[in-house]
Amino acid sequence: MTRPSSVPPPVTAVLDASSRWLPARLGEVEELLRQAVAGHGERLGEDAGATLAAGGKRLRPMLVLLCAGPERSEVAVRAAAAIELVHMATLVHDDVLDDAPLRRGLPTVAATSGREGATATGDLLFSRAFALLAEAGDARSVALLADASVALARGELAQRRDAFDLGIDEQRYLSRCRLKTGRLFECACLLGRADEALREFGAEIGLAFQLLDDVLDVSGPPERTGKARGTDLLDGTVTLPLIEAATEDPGIREVDLHALDAAKAEALCDRIAATGALDRVRARALEMVAAAKRALDRARFEPEQRQLLSLVADGVVQRYS
Amino acid sequence: MTRPSSVPPPVTAVLDASSRWLPARLGEVEELLRQAVAGHGERLGEDAGATLAAGGKRLRPMLVLLCAGPERSEVAVRAAAAIELVHMATLVHDDVLDDAPLRRGLPTVAATSGREGATATGDLLFSRAFALLAEAGDARSVALLADASVALARGELAQRRDAFDLGIDEQRYLSRCRLKTGRLFECACLLGRADEALREFGAEIGLAFQLLDDVLDVSGPPERTGKARGTDLLDGTVTLPLIEAATEDPGIREVDLHALDAAKAEALCDRIAATGALDRVRARALEMVAAAKRALDRARFEPEQRQLLSLVADGVVQRYS
Repeated sequence: MTRPSSVPPPVTAVLDASSRWLPARLGEVEELLRQAVAGHGERLGEDAGATLAAGGKRLRPMLVLLCAGPERSEVAVRAAAAIELVHMATLVHDDVLDDAPLRRGLPTVAATSGREGATATGDLLFSRAFALLAEAGDARSVALLADASVALARGELAQRRDAFDLGIDEQRYLSRCRLKTGRLFECACLLGRADEALREFGAEIGLAFQLLDDVLDVSGPPERTGKARGTDLLDGTVTLPLIEAATEDPGIREVDLHALDAAKAEALCDRIAATGALDRVRARALEMVAAAKRALDRARFEPEQRQLLSLVADGVVQRYS
Repeated sequence: MTRPSSVPPPVTAVLDASSRWLPARLGEVEELLRQAVAGHGERLGEDAGATLAAGGKRLRPMLVLLCAGPERSEVAVRAAAAIELVHMATLVHDDVLDDAPLRRGLPTVAATSGREGATATGDLLFSRAFALLAEAGDARSVALLADASVALARGELAQRRDAFDLGIDEQRYLSRCRLKTGRLFECACLLGRADEALREFGAEIGLAFQLLDDVLDVSGPPERTGKARGTDLLDGTVTLPLIEAATEDPGIREVDLHALDAAKAEALCDRIAATGALDRVRARALEMVAAAKRALDRARFEPEQRQLLSLVADGVVQRYS
């Protein structure tokens, strides 16, 4: 298998620990992704190809494959590619909404092809995901992925609706994260294997993943995360670090998020960090990882599968991107 | 069945000519559409509900039901609702890209909930379409609808790529329309019944539908079409009336579409009309309708089904919206 050019550390750890089947299977997923976006016209080929080539952690496909295990092959490989296509579609649409010029250090589709081109490219990636599963007659996977996609969109809607509202509480934050991030991780596990313990595993690490994302937005450092500190705050996205910080420093609730610029956003990040909120949120994420591992103990696995899934769980809170 | 508040004339003609099964079945589709968008959070309920309530011709669902015939019920009703959800999703996304304030005289989702809300609402409608089919284990329909959705997105991409290019020819225009419009009509027929003659029927009336849309953009009258003349021209969309007109009046190719304002766009519409291009394009659309009816003759049907499909074919070129 040819590894994607820039495999992030936690994924490397999993690949290094695995026997040959996992890298081989991931190679098949890459090939399927390439085929899925090929032959849909020149421009899409370029745009979607660039999105693919920009890499990403391929965490969701890896979860599908690991939950499926070494035996189940074609179904799992297709499902792994499909879930990554949905994930990519949402990133492309997000970049349109945020007018983002760069992602992972490369120009976004929105930047190279405009809002129109990028919206259509996102729709196309989305449609290809379902086509890939339907071609194999896999209605169960279509249902899982469609439901998760509905949740994703609802999570996006919730985030935009709650934007700039400093009154939202932890409960509301967590339910939004479950929709926006948790459900797709959960779906990845269930695409691999129908198992309630795996559903719980996926939901917990998805939530932990989002919490760490939100910590990194405040903590940086930008050299490691690849984006400026306080990017979420500038978008008006109220995350757990801010909610936590406000319990120690209630004045934070009076900040006018609409009035932030890059410098004020960084200053707010410092103020949040000064309350110790980041450590508390990190601790919460680690609790979720622990809960995920307990769920794992309830599922039947080959020892290697359990060990690798455990590494993935650790990986979601040990990363910068 | 409760008819949508403003049923357009060609659809009324079909409903009036049909026996009871068709209106009853369309009522079931409406109910399924209502359920499909319910329970996904307050805001989506409102946004998608408003999109639904704004009506539309429900032409695609009607094609599914007519091709399926009076016998096949639940599968066809689901497929009919799903194709309308995909159609609605693309309208919502289009309105985001065009910053459109109104559609069918009502505020668009983009206008009431912003680009972010509308993009997510579109994604959600899209996902619900696939979920609806997958819930019933209908992988064949998922495959058909996913492929048509891919074509739709490719058509959108082609249109944005070709924008403002007066060098595009009829071939290129037609192949874009096949993707953007024809394939979803074709899909509607095939969702009803797998039959090559019906595929051809759908493709022809879809193309005729698009040609008439493009004529109406130039001819108006705005009181009937509900939008200003020359809206496509202002967006840089080069359509067949313009391409046809340029064969009589080559100076049209020298017009700078980027420099148009509303008044200049209307003047260009007059210039196009003066060449007789609109009659020629209308004649082309009628030829397509005739070809569609010939395809219909090759399919086996109950007499009523054939008569109603024939009315739908006539309807796509006898309308203002």
